[in-house]
Amino acid sequence: MQIGMIGLGRMGGNIVRRLMKDGHHAVVYDRDPQAIEALTREGAIGAGGLEDLVRKLDPPRAVWVMLPAGQITEATIDQLGKLLAAGDVVIDGGNTFWQDDIRRAKTLKETGIDYVDVGTSGGIWGYARGYCMMIGGDKVVVDRLDPIFATLAPGIGDIPRTPGRETRDPRVEQGYIHAGPVGAGHFVKMVHNGIEYGLMQAYAEGFDILKNASSEALPEAHRFDLDIADIAEVWRRGSVIPSWLLDLTSTALARNDQLDNYSGFVEDSGEGRWTINAAIEEAVPAEVLTAALYARFRSRRDHTFAEKILSAMRAGFGGHKEPQQHPEPEQQAAPQQKLKPKSERA
Amino acid sequence: MQIGMIGLGRMGGNIVRRLMKDGHHAVVYDRDPQAIEALTREGAIGAGGLEDLVRKLDPPRAVWVMLPAGQITEATIDQLGKLLAAGDVVIDGGNTFWQDDIRRAKTLKETGIDYVDVGTSGGIWGYARGYCMMIGGDKVVVDRLDPIFATLAPGIGDIPRTPGRETRDPRVEQGYIHAGPVGAGHFVKMVHNGIEYGLMQAYAEGFDILKNASSEALPEAHRFDLDIADIAEVWRRGSVIPSWLLDLTSTALARNDQLDNYSGFVEDSGEGRWTINAAIEEAVPAEVLTAALYARFRSRRDHTFAEKILSAMRAGFGGHKEPQQHPEPEQQAAPQQKLKPKSERA
Amino acid sequence: MQIGMIGLGRMGGNIVRRLMKDGHHAVVYDRDPQAIEALTREGAIGAGGLEDLVRKLDPPRAVWVMLPAGQITEATIDQLGKLLAAGDVVIDGGNTFWQDDIRRAKTLKETGIDYVDVGTSGGIWGYARGYCMMIGGDKVVVDRLDPIFATLAPGIGDIPRTPGRETRDPRVEQGYIHAGPVGAGHFVKMVHNGIEYGLMQAYAEGFDILKNASSEALPEAHRFDLDIADIAEVWRRGSVIPSWLLDLTSTALARNDQLDNYSGFVEDSGEGRWTINAAIEEAVPAEVLTAALYARFRSRRDHTFAEKILSAMRAGFGGHKEPQQHPEPEQQAAPQQKLKPKSERA
Amino acid sequence: MQIGMIGLGRMGGNIVRRLMKDGHHAVVYDRDPQAIEALTREGAIGAGGLEDLVRKLDPPRAVWVMLPAGQITEATIDQLGKLLAAGDVVIDGGNTFWQDDIRRAKTLKETGIDYVDVGTSGGIWGYARGYCMMIGGDKVVVDRLDPIFATLAPGIGDIPRTPGRETRDPRVEQGYIHAGPVGAGHFVKMVHNGIEYGLMQAYAEGFDILKNASSEALPEAHRFDLDIADIAEVWRRGSVIPSWLLDLTSTALARNDQLDNYSGFVEDSGEGRWTINAAIEEAVPAEVLTAALYARFRSRRDHTFAEKILSAMRAGFGGHKEPQQHPEPEQQAAPQQKLKPKSERA
Repeated sequence: MQIGMIGLGRMGGNIVRRLMKDGHHAVVYDRDPQAIEALTREGAIGAGGLEDLVRKLDPPRAVWVMLPAGQITEATIDQLGKLLAAGDVVIDGGNTFWQDDIRRAKTLKETGIDYVDVGTSGGIWGYARGYCMMIGGDKVVVDRLDPIFATLAPGIGDIPRTPGRETRDPRVEQGYIHAGPVGAGHFVKMVHNGIEYGLMQAYAEGFDILKNASSEALPEAHRFDLDIADIAEVWRRGSVIPSWLLDLTSTALARNDQLDNYSGFVEDSGEGRWTINAAIEEAVPAEVLTAALYARFRSRRDHTFAEKILSAMRAGFGGHKEPQQHPEPEQQAAPQQKLKPKSERA
Repeated sequence: MQIGMIGLGRMGGNIVRRLMKDGHHAVVYDRDPQAIEALTREGAIGAGGLEDLVRKLDPPRAVWVMLPAGQITEATIDQLGKLLAAGDVVIDGGNTFWQDDIRRAKTLKETGIDYVDVGTSGGIWGYARGYCMMIGGDKVVVDRLDPIFATLAPGIGDIPRTPGRETRDPRVEQGYIHAGPVGAGHFVKMVHNGIEYGLMQAYAEGFDILKNASSEALPEAHRFDLDIADIAEVWRRGSVIPSWLLDLTSTALARNDQLDNYSGFVEDSGEGRWTINAAIEEAVPAEVLTAALYARFRSRRDHTFAEKILSAMRAGFGGHKEPQQHPEPEQQAAPQQKLKPKSERA
Repeated sequence: MQIGMIGLGRMGGNIVRRLMKDGHHAVVYDRDPQAIEALTREGAIGAGGLEDLVRKLDPPRAVWVMLPAGQITEATIDQLGKLLAAGDVVIDGGNTFWQDDIRRAKTLKETGIDYVDVGTSGGIWGYARGYCMMIGGDKVVVDRLDPIFATLAPGIGDIPRTPGRETRDPRVEQGYIHAGPVGAGHFVKMVHNGIEYGLMQAYAEGFDILKNASSEALPEAHRFDLDIADIAEVWRRGSVIPSWLLDLTSTALARNDQLDNYSGFVEDSGEGRWTINAAIEEAVPAEVLTAALYARFRSRRDHTFAEKILSAMRAGFGGHKEPQQHPEPEQQAAPQQKLKPKSERA
Repeated sequence: MQIGMIGLGRMGGNIVRRLMKDGHHAVVYDRDPQAIEALTREGAIGAGGLEDLVRKLDPPRAVWVMLPAGQITEATIDQLGKLLAAGDVVIDGGNTFWQDDIRRAKTLKETGIDYVDVGTSGGIWGYARGYCMMIGGDKVVVDRLDPIFATLAPGIGDIPRTPGRETRDPRVEQGYIHAGPVGAGHFVKMVHNGIEYGLMQAYAEGFDILKNASSEALPEAHRFDLDIADIAEVWRRGSVIPSWLLDLTSTALARNDQLDNYSGFVEDSGEGRWTINAAIEEAVPAEVLTAALYARFRSRRDHTFAEKILSAMRAGFGGHKEPQQHPEPEQQAAPQQKLKPKSERA
């Protein structure tokens, strides 16, 4: 079928490519003319702007918006609301906050325009591997778009089938789900990312413990000099913890097992935060997902004000003077060895 | 080659089976005569006790101990120390604390007996899937046992190879690793289990948030009634979070998506705890792994004393009286609705 | 000066009493006629409703709303907005969400009505001990209300003065602060409560560790049978951790050191949650405050769905069967003793 | 009565001074001759070494060891074991690990020497304020030393008495407790320090949230520019969270509310770590105390290896490139504004 795509970054561009490869047609737009040009060379129809894009699509139109969540998406959908007609549908495939979906869908509904939110996972691997899609919207609209989703989804592939699913919705095994009404798609994608943070942090802490097992501050009998890259690899087969994230870790460590090509500064996007907000609203204790988020926050500070408060208190009750510099990691462990003279302690 | 196996539970028995299937020979012992009998029917030589087992093995002997960590393993290895001779090797394949390995190896060394610790992962799936093994011990001893490990390991299978490993130890890709000197095997297995707890808890919290999204205590516009079983399945393909643990979760949810066949009481074994002890000794912040362990501790209490202390304080400063019973989960969220009259609050 | 008070619960009623004791005048209203009657007997002027209350106050009026945050406060302030006149002021002394303050103030401003938010701490002790007040609003309005705040505040009392504050705002030492524009009062009170949760949980966990030191599951040489009530008391003098919360704990434990008069079910109000939401918006890692909130969430569940997911996974990879009942706490510790036979483990 | 004191640092020296002020006699030793000289000028008898100290004391001797926990204390008590006689007592007033107490006491018992462990709190304030002491040992020995403890303890002072303690051990209200057999004193002191970490972190996080409320990355309507020093002070009276730690914080902030005289590098001593190990052995979930410990671990690293693992994974699945430098804190919040183009996200 035909789709309009707004936003031709690495995600949007590859979605178009995967669609065209399977026989779909695309009218595409991006702020960057080169991005449009590249795709027109591959068979897409370029548009000079939103108005042009809408004009070039046959009604009932389907316009996929694949832009960074927030301001740009908001403005684009606003404008589309003015250009599209009843029966058309806007698909937000970005990482939008699910409450924004609900609000926007309500506004668009007033003029008969449908809205579908698609939490799209797959990153830079999606073109080849397919996109896992979590979809929110009215059944009839989602069904109408099924050819698009079926093409983008990874399909069953060589992943073993789960027993007992014979009578269940077959789309799910293909890698896409109609999760519920508008907002449900991004809600499920949000939790997916929340889990992702937790999984990543679990591996990361484990490797940190392995790495620091060689610390010279440990008693000699407690030290191991472990090959982290090999350990990541060995766990990929037969252990309890194989996963795609472990595969990626093993690949990165095989390349550079010190990872000194990374600063350790870790960003977070909105989904991790919204997941915790949702947990709090539901009164669900989400210790691990929250700790994973906070580890990222902390990674981006040199020192927190909280830490200075601690030092100020310690000076207050114990006369403790903290060192001014980071010691080498090797000097971190084994508190016995670094205790101050009793006289300075509380 | 030939091996003696002590402990024929589901792990030990299947290890013997996998070895025999590949042409190895086994002399086996268990406290339970039926376990011995079952394996002799399949080709193993049964032993009437440790002494008999040692007698039936050709020197230099290799005796694999596959018993619960702690007292029984300790006593068994103690006794083996008296029965074996220089050049023999004891293999501890259980979940032993790595510092116990080091101590035992030192004692056995005095009479020339070698010791190898093997962290063995694979659970009830190991017979078919192979066992991921993390091995600690002297190179020459570990090398001598290689045929055993090669048989037990999963092999490369259909799991894609990690690029850049061409010049590295090829055993690792087969699913076993010589991690370092005695103790290193169980140390790495310990961290594997620590990570396992963290991964499990990350998924668990995510599904809890999805589940409680339908809570009636939420504002109606914030509620979703999601199909948890389908969501677990959809994430298996194309998302960022596929893993073997997710596969298992999807299978369990396809069978019973309320999971009301489970009490929610969750045990922990020693490795999770030792991992945290190791993190603390190394001064590594391991928030997620620790939170995962604590969630299990908490799952086994009706209420903690800590919670009663909180209630006592709240009564003290605010005159708060806590309800005496668990409300339905649906009544948990949305604090606005359940605030007490101002008069009872601080 | 004269004040109108809406909401005569334990907080509102005692605020009126403390004001009248110091010579202020009050017109009071509550849904409960008995609450009004009680205060009129003590010198207040009763009102039959909001309209009557407004009529009985001399302009420019000051109306203090002391109701549960949420719906009731919202409706009351809405109605006051229609009854009051330019130059009057609404004081919200409840536990309102600070963003609601900002929104309401903006609406009231349209008709010239001022708005002041007062985070009011002190609970059932406030009448005698005074109320710590965190105030948000325009300077001129807050200044006009100063006589009210000065009366309600605790005053310097016998708490030692902090050196170096000679040139700073003297109201602060009296126990009230003009924290900033509208919303700032409740924002600061919100963080106060967030900290409160963290402090409470820190003590609670410590006492839990002391309590469980007598667990029969511990090796005998690791057990202590400690007098928790005496320990709480001894820490009140000369230690690093004396606090009002510890005083209250010691009092509760002196009365009943098993605290079996408490269920362990612990409520939370909105402030704890909003504090975490604020931390997340600011990208501040707030591990301790969050863990304290989650401990309350968890205290209110029999079991979480997350825990059932864990059990389902454990059954999946290891064939583990969890016990169906809570063991006695004494059977919790010492994992060595409770390991399952190897055959059932992964 | 008479006491020998080994270790004349700020704690040991002031303990001697407080004892002498109340009429007790002291024989003192330190590696630093100047420390001995200073105290002899104030009335103590100096000793040239352990042997000399033992000789100058009248049997049955009481020798207080006030040295850093670990090696030095171990060696000193070892040597005392050889010099002292049956009926003498060694008092370890340092921050010793309670299991070391039990081991040492057992050894000393063989030659009839008693052992008492005293967890001593009070820091640099102890001379004036008194020391809160948590004591482990045999009743008859602890009773014999009572005059020492009674002098060192803070006494009831002006801290209000807890109702309902009339029939309980009166020493507790004086600020010292005979907590149980050998080891119990340091066990209780250990938990005291564990709680201390938790309390400190709770305040620290709260102030961090207040501080970052002015971040320019927040939407302007969500920003507050708060006076942290004034807020710390106002909470000291009438709120729920007054404490000695808050007093110290207010003092530090009055002096420098940026705390830029502190690096934010925060040390930990053994007690915090041992508290968590104890919690884990008891299967007590101690989320807050653990998070407080980990915050200190983290404060001492520039970046963790865990964080690099996260970055490596993010590059692997999403092509994310993390910035190499710490942005200003103001650029931390508000994820909406800093999202990368969709093309680089997963």
